[in-house]
Amino acid sequence: MDIREYLNEKSSLVNGCIEKYFTECCTSAPDVLRESMKYSLMAGGKRLRPVLAMASYEACGGKGADILLGASALEVIHTYSLIHDDLPAMDDDDLRRGRPTNHKVYGEAIAILAGDGLLTEAFLMLMANEGPVSRDNILNSLKELAVAAGPAGMVGGQVMDILSENAEPDAHRLEYIHTHKTGALIRASVRMGALLMGADEAKLASLTRYGECLGLAFQIVDDILDVKGDEKELGKPVGSDEGKNKMTYPSLYGIDSSMERAEALISEALDSISAFGQEAGPLRGIADYIIRRTH
Amino acid sequence: MDIREYLNEKSSLVNGCIEKYFTECCTSAPDVLRESMKYSLMAGGKRLRPVLAMASYEACGGKGADILLGASALEVIHTYSLIHDDLPAMDDDDLRRGRPTNHKVYGEAIAILAGDGLLTEAFLMLMANEGPVSRDNILNSLKELAVAAGPAGMVGGQVMDILSENAEPDAHRLEYIHTHKTGALIRASVRMGALLMGADEAKLASLTRYGECLGLAFQIVDDILDVKGDEKELGKPVGSDEGKNKMTYPSLYGIDSSMERAEALISEALDSISAFGQEAGPLRGIADYIIRRTH
Repeated sequence: MDIREYLNEKSSLVNGCIEKYFTECCTSAPDVLRESMKYSLMAGGKRLRPVLAMASYEACGGKGADILLGASALEVIHTYSLIHDDLPAMDDDDLRRGRPTNHKVYGEAIAILAGDGLLTEAFLMLMANEGPVSRDNILNSLKELAVAAGPAGMVGGQVMDILSENAEPDAHRLEYIHTHKTGALIRASVRMGALLMGADEAKLASLTRYGECLGLAFQIVDDILDVKGDEKELGKPVGSDEGKNKMTYPSLYGIDSSMERAEALISEALDSISAFGQEAGPLRGIADYIIRRTH
Repeated sequence: MDIREYLNEKSSLVNGCIEKYFTECCTSAPDVLRESMKYSLMAGGKRLRPVLAMASYEACGGKGADILLGASALEVIHTYSLIHDDLPAMDDDDLRRGRPTNHKVYGEAIAILAGDGLLTEAFLMLMANEGPVSRDNILNSLKELAVAAGPAGMVGGQVMDILSENAEPDAHRLEYIHTHKTGALIRASVRMGALLMGADEAKLASLTRYGECLGLAFQIVDDILDVKGDEKELGKPVGSDEGKNKMTYPSLYGIDSSMERAEALISEALDSISAFGQEAGPLRGIADYIIRRTH
């Protein structure tokens, strides 16, 4: 299987799902709010989190498309977090994926509320996932999503990131930021695939470890690309972390050690799911794909 | 039954529940985030929404304390909305309930993230409500809460409120703001009591109408108090709506007509639940209490 083909196919399913859902939902909401939410939702992106959830659901024996709505909710949460991260009070970014950030187009107030709206709507999207998924499994996934997105997860990571700007480099703090700000939602994406299937404890544990390793590797690679990546491909200026005195892997350990750590994590991710058969092919492909981004 | 005693008793249950939950939850989150969330949660307030949910649950034959956690989630959502509403990009308020607003104490970035954290955690709180409530009824209540809080509810109302500052008075727009910005969550509070009990359609319909009338009456009374209330009791300056060119009931219809409308709504609220017996006593008392605030 060609993983790029798999990623393209699944991400266009996600694009279609989000486009349709946000065209049909909350039609009574003010137009500018709906436009603003869609502006950021449809700004492109790899749709990594929903694709991971579907790949994990497939690794547990399901058909990815059966959890398309629930998986897409992960992208909606991710999008809200980007809108709020970009705000002047936070990272104060003007560009995201090569386009003006949400508050640059709609103003700060609407951008904050678009983020709030997306966060809330994401839970509704997951609850609207019907088909073969039981209500119990939906409830378990809702918990997973809220824990990962909340104060003990993504929001906590973002707080620590802000507190750490201009601070002395610190390995514990950096690990906290990475495992929470991006790691928690990636881990939850993989786990949600398993939870929506009602997978057994052993499978859930293997996939959890896969998700943890993948999430941290992904963020390290992101840090590396911010130093040596291609501006056009990134959609934002290279070196933007350094310009903001962000704590990153390369700033603490250097590029080479960071790269070694990312590679070791990808190996561990692959080892974690070695007991799975070829139904875990997409998960393996995604792990390879993430490390290849740096080459 | 003395309704003030009922309100005091129930609101102190809610205070205890929120204090305990947020002391025990997300202990791995950064201290400043937990402090900031608690700062706004414990700022006082009538706890009207949780009390309404419990009173509605009792009207359907349950014991209010059995849904204390789920009901308290409504206050957590309400608190997040106040933090975001007060931000410089929104209403730019320095005082809330007589104390500095969240961003005045913790800065804008932390205030935005505290709001995000509370919104997310509220769903977890509702899911943590165990006891006699079935998982199906929890799921139905989660939907209710997310719809009311989301783009088609509270967030939409706040967007319209912001778009309407300095705009020409407009009856349709004012109704939209009031029924969405505050009305949606109050309606949902009453409905959640019924949904958590799994009440039948007829009861749910009666309580829904009660909640709609009560929510609108509550907001009209709030508008009136902003003009002629007591500064010390309100915890914010009298006339702050007018100072911001907010669209309000008194500004559109005058004080007397606004008062008549509120009284008519309270009568309709009481009529809607006339088929209920004495188990709806607290709901009746709350309706009376809300209109009495103006006298």
